[in-house]
Amino acid sequence: MPVGIAVVGCGYWGPNLVRNFWESDETELHWVCDLVPERLLGIQKRYPAVKLTHRLEEVLADSAVDGVCIATPSHTHFELARQVLESGRHVLVEKPLCDSSDKVQRLIDLAEQRGKVLMVDHTFLYNPAVQAVRGILDSGRLGRLLYFDSTRVNLGLFQRDVNVLWDLAVHDLAMMDYLIHDRRPLAISATGIAHVPGQPENMAYLTCFYADNLVAHIHANWLAPVKLRRTLLGGEKQMIVYDDLEPSERVKVYDKGITVTDEKEIHKLLISYRSGDCWCPKVPAGEALENEVRHFAECIRSGAKPLSDGLAGLRVVKMIEAGTLSIQQRGAPVELNLA
Amino acid sequence: MPVGIAVVGCGYWGPNLVRNFWESDETELHWVCDLVPERLLGIQKRYPAVKLTHRLEEVLADSAVDGVCIATPSHTHFELARQVLESGRHVLVEKPLCDSSDKVQRLIDLAEQRGKVLMVDHTFLYNPAVQAVRGILDSGRLGRLLYFDSTRVNLGLFQRDVNVLWDLAVHDLAMMDYLIHDRRPLAISATGIAHVPGQPENMAYLTCFYADNLVAHIHANWLAPVKLRRTLLGGEKQMIVYDDLEPSERVKVYDKGITVTDEKEIHKLLISYRSGDCWCPKVPAGEALENEVRHFAECIRSGAKPLSDGLAGLRVVKMIEAGTLSIQQRGAPVELNLA
Amino acid sequence: MPVGIAVVGCGYWGPNLVRNFWESDETELHWVCDLVPERLLGIQKRYPAVKLTHRLEEVLADSAVDGVCIATPSHTHFELARQVLESGRHVLVEKPLCDSSDKVQRLIDLAEQRGKVLMVDHTFLYNPAVQAVRGILDSGRLGRLLYFDSTRVNLGLFQRDVNVLWDLAVHDLAMMDYLIHDRRPLAISATGIAHVPGQPENMAYLTCFYADNLVAHIHANWLAPVKLRRTLLGGEKQMIVYDDLEPSERVKVYDKGITVTDEKEIHKLLISYRSGDCWCPKVPAGEALENEVRHFAECIRSGAKPLSDGLAGLRVVKMIEAGTLSIQQRGAPVELNLA
Amino acid sequence: MPVGIAVVGCGYWGPNLVRNFWESDETELHWVCDLVPERLLGIQKRYPAVKLTHRLEEVLADSAVDGVCIATPSHTHFELARQVLESGRHVLVEKPLCDSSDKVQRLIDLAEQRGKVLMVDHTFLYNPAVQAVRGILDSGRLGRLLYFDSTRVNLGLFQRDVNVLWDLAVHDLAMMDYLIHDRRPLAISATGIAHVPGQPENMAYLTCFYADNLVAHIHANWLAPVKLRRTLLGGEKQMIVYDDLEPSERVKVYDKGITVTDEKEIHKLLISYRSGDCWCPKVPAGEALENEVRHFAECIRSGAKPLSDGLAGLRVVKMIEAGTLSIQQRGAPVELNLA
Repeated sequence: MPVGIAVVGCGYWGPNLVRNFWESDETELHWVCDLVPERLLGIQKRYPAVKLTHRLEEVLADSAVDGVCIATPSHTHFELARQVLESGRHVLVEKPLCDSSDKVQRLIDLAEQRGKVLMVDHTFLYNPAVQAVRGILDSGRLGRLLYFDSTRVNLGLFQRDVNVLWDLAVHDLAMMDYLIHDRRPLAISATGIAHVPGQPENMAYLTCFYADNLVAHIHANWLAPVKLRRTLLGGEKQMIVYDDLEPSERVKVYDKGITVTDEKEIHKLLISYRSGDCWCPKVPAGEALENEVRHFAECIRSGAKPLSDGLAGLRVVKMIEAGTLSIQQRGAPVELNLA
Repeated sequence: MPVGIAVVGCGYWGPNLVRNFWESDETELHWVCDLVPERLLGIQKRYPAVKLTHRLEEVLADSAVDGVCIATPSHTHFELARQVLESGRHVLVEKPLCDSSDKVQRLIDLAEQRGKVLMVDHTFLYNPAVQAVRGILDSGRLGRLLYFDSTRVNLGLFQRDVNVLWDLAVHDLAMMDYLIHDRRPLAISATGIAHVPGQPENMAYLTCFYADNLVAHIHANWLAPVKLRRTLLGGEKQMIVYDDLEPSERVKVYDKGITVTDEKEIHKLLISYRSGDCWCPKVPAGEALENEVRHFAECIRSGAKPLSDGLAGLRVVKMIEAGTLSIQQRGAPVELNLA
Repeated sequence: MPVGIAVVGCGYWGPNLVRNFWESDETELHWVCDLVPERLLGIQKRYPAVKLTHRLEEVLADSAVDGVCIATPSHTHFELARQVLESGRHVLVEKPLCDSSDKVQRLIDLAEQRGKVLMVDHTFLYNPAVQAVRGILDSGRLGRLLYFDSTRVNLGLFQRDVNVLWDLAVHDLAMMDYLIHDRRPLAISATGIAHVPGQPENMAYLTCFYADNLVAHIHANWLAPVKLRRTLLGGEKQMIVYDDLEPSERVKVYDKGITVTDEKEIHKLLISYRSGDCWCPKVPAGEALENEVRHFAECIRSGAKPLSDGLAGLRVVKMIEAGTLSIQQRGAPVELNLA
Repeated sequence: MPVGIAVVGCGYWGPNLVRNFWESDETELHWVCDLVPERLLGIQKRYPAVKLTHRLEEVLADSAVDGVCIATPSHTHFELARQVLESGRHVLVEKPLCDSSDKVQRLIDLAEQRGKVLMVDHTFLYNPAVQAVRGILDSGRLGRLLYFDSTRVNLGLFQRDVNVLWDLAVHDLAMMDYLIHDRRPLAISATGIAHVPGQPENMAYLTCFYADNLVAHIHANWLAPVKLRRTLLGGEKQMIVYDDLEPSERVKVYDKGITVTDEKEIHKLLISYRSGDCWCPKVPAGEALENEVRHFAECIRSGAKPLSDGLAGLRVVKMIEAGTLSIQQRGAPVELNLA
């Protein structure tokens, strides 16, 4: 039997969630809630069977609602998610989970107490290409991982209340957190700039330092003339290029690397290059959100922790906070404490 | 009458200089000097008319030699260039000009005293595409310049004695120094990592802070699976993408940007987007080195300062030094003093 | 007031039409008709307000229906469209309009008698990029048009009843017919092959001969490893590349060409090359089908001839018939008579 | 001991041959012969040790010359190659081997009588990427070959004496002849057009019909705004895309195809699609001409038939003749007789 769902907020991203909850066999969309009447009219035109309201209370009074999905501006996430959890419902919150790590921690605690699912919409974790990359990494064929490098730039919507780390880099941080799951970054150095006076930073560069000489770098920019979505993963034996805009071969695995030989007698390293074939695994079709919506329903039914649980949301928000602090200090490193 | 030339060093890059000095009508190549006999044999096979030696003294004893081009490892640049200048010859030195800013300053002083040309091989300044970008920038059509972002990565030759800033980022710094010539960066934050123990950093990210919220960022990596050579220049009115690997449209000018309106009465900024046509100027054919070799000959004849003079070399070396220092401090900013 | 619509057939393409008729403010979707119960169930799930049936009679009995859109297999188009027109309704028929030019002519005559709109779903005519190309052609800046060359290949659905000309090349023929509207092709030579015994041709090459040395060529293939959608238009002064898969610059105008000078005294032509800038006009956003659905509604209201009227459908079907005949004769030319 | 070489003709292509003969360890370049004094001056500047002349007799009088390479306009090939062979020298002739198949046959007979090497400069046979494609085809992994499709277009040099088949398509025909070596085409249909009055055809489309439903198609155009060099090879099990302009992955092998099942009881074919991984074999570095020059030297020494022997040259010229004839008949098929 499908899980009963309400979606709160249908501005920019909400309609995609509405569509996926509506179309999934695992869920039944009962309510859409928004403060803007025009948006509700748009929903009514497309989904006449869905109930509409501007009051969350009305949604929470309906016992058919098992889980609520929150897709409102991020500064409202905490208060809305709190009400949902306290009403005994499961909650899926758009990224970033909250606008501060303190609030995220309080939601984690509350969900724990109530025994409810707290899931964050880290969409890319449910993208089939990212899942293929994760499988390749987990197989060990890359050898020791050396770096992660992700670029996400385009001429995008200027946000007034949050900087580009909260809006764009959050995707790369979530992806990085998912792909590199055997350790966590220890410190962050970031630089960025606000080109419109009084507005938050619209471009940023962020380096995460891990143990064992692993580094991750993210470039996020709202003010670029072209759209780029490319992630490089360098391993000692093989390397991956994942380009989300590539129409066919989105994931490429290169049999390239270096071989370091320690010539003991001559006290000298020999470094030689390898350049072999390239392999592009078939990436299954399917929309990330469709997978994500199904996963939310499964977690509600089974009680399992979601892939993108509160702790994942907490780590990502802590990294954004550290990055923002480092930007203010023109790149000075900020230590992280990601248990 | 052509200028008489000697080339010192014909390992990796030297043969390209040899070929261009040989083929130019402006220069006459008399000597090639190298310590490795096999390399001289290779030159002899292709250019039987050129005299060969392993002793710089022999070159400098020949009064037919007007200018000497030095293409040896960077730690030898200073001593060789010093001898050339003291013998009363003009000198063109491969990038980086020296391995420390102190040495560069001493060469600048020496060239000044002797009244000789001191030029550094910042090759990209002589690249027709970069010159086209400079023309567009100087025309003012981009409006206020917001950022410069350059990526130069590939699976490249590991250097044992210098890090990737000295080897790869030097190109982007020289290009940036040429394109943004109305001001100089004030501070640098850089991060990087050495993946082979005991070796210099093989990947680096470097942010240059300018006045007026202009930033420049450079990503250099010797250990990437794919070759990327892309520079973005964001302006308030228009933006440029220069991709040196693009077979036809290497320079694209996008009529894209944002418009910020200050609504005084409502105390609020209105930000709107513009997205218009794209224009790809024709870039003249021609090899950068061919242009550079001709420029060296012209400066020798006219006594003019080269485009890439000792001061350009000094600024670039100072930026690399500051970047290397910042890397050691995991991104902490280092102030620059580029008079 | 919106125009009342019914869609007949919701297999592969029909659902796209259903969605666009549902979402347009110009139309009100009343009915969906299909013989397969599962398809109607899918429509019911997404559009609970739409009435469903497997009988066209039921649709035509509803006076709220002004126009009917037919998206069934092509061999059924004639009979269904005939019933619709005879019931006094306007009709939009998926491409190809019919499976023979005789049938198309009979529909044209019928629509004329009844004074109803007969429109064919030549989707690309409503694509903003194709409309931009038409505007550039009509401006005359290309000079004399020399050729049209279109490639449409991918690993596609094998059709059992019609060859690849009816299924894929029909798009290019419709586009060609729209773009080159000042004259019509005089003859066709085509080659093609059926790789599955007993099945229709799955790949084809087709050349259309026009007066004045203009040629058009179309390459259509269901069995290609990569997807290509590229059209070249060569003019004496400028040339266009329209690549429908290009994420940003879909239309590029090259200032390239040749200059032919007739040197009378030396009885010899001088041919020189020009290669100048490239310009990429901004192509407005918007889905072709959305524009098409609006155009159908406007034609119903105003009585105007649609851009893709019966005669356009007739010319395209005649070209497919001639191409198929030529294929059977391994490329021997077949004359066309397109009044 | 290196083979002694003379190059006759150093206009457009000759200098590349000169450079490769000069640099190869297998050959020693003694002479360059051309009627235009300026060209010889250019050679003298770069290769002062090479002897220069405008008289072939002088070259043939030198007993140090073992083989002669002819890179003159194609209408002169026969007469020059004849003299070379009659003087008892081996000969390498630029493509096309001659401007008629009769002349080619006479050269073949003459070389046979004299026991000398007759080789044609079908450059692409020596291209490492094409050799990789041949290896993949020969391995059988593609299954039954279904088609070959090659595009070679750009804004190129207009030829006054020969059409675009002789100049551009000759490369694709030579490549096709090399890759598909187990059978020969039976007939050709071609279309093309001359856009400059009185000049030869500057664009052409050519279909080759083989037994067993294999077809090959070539598109050649001197008047295209962009440069394309792409060859598709479709097999029943796998397919290849070879793009000579792709900077890294020039050869891609797609695990894509169709599966046809003959369902006897239901008298119906079931066609299903397969779409799997993609694999890009590493293509060795190296210039085609370098390999070709070495192969010529080896054949001279060993007496072996070259890969691109007179018969290969004959087949290609016969196909061009048939294609030209078909063009004049607007695509009507012309039978081939390629023993």
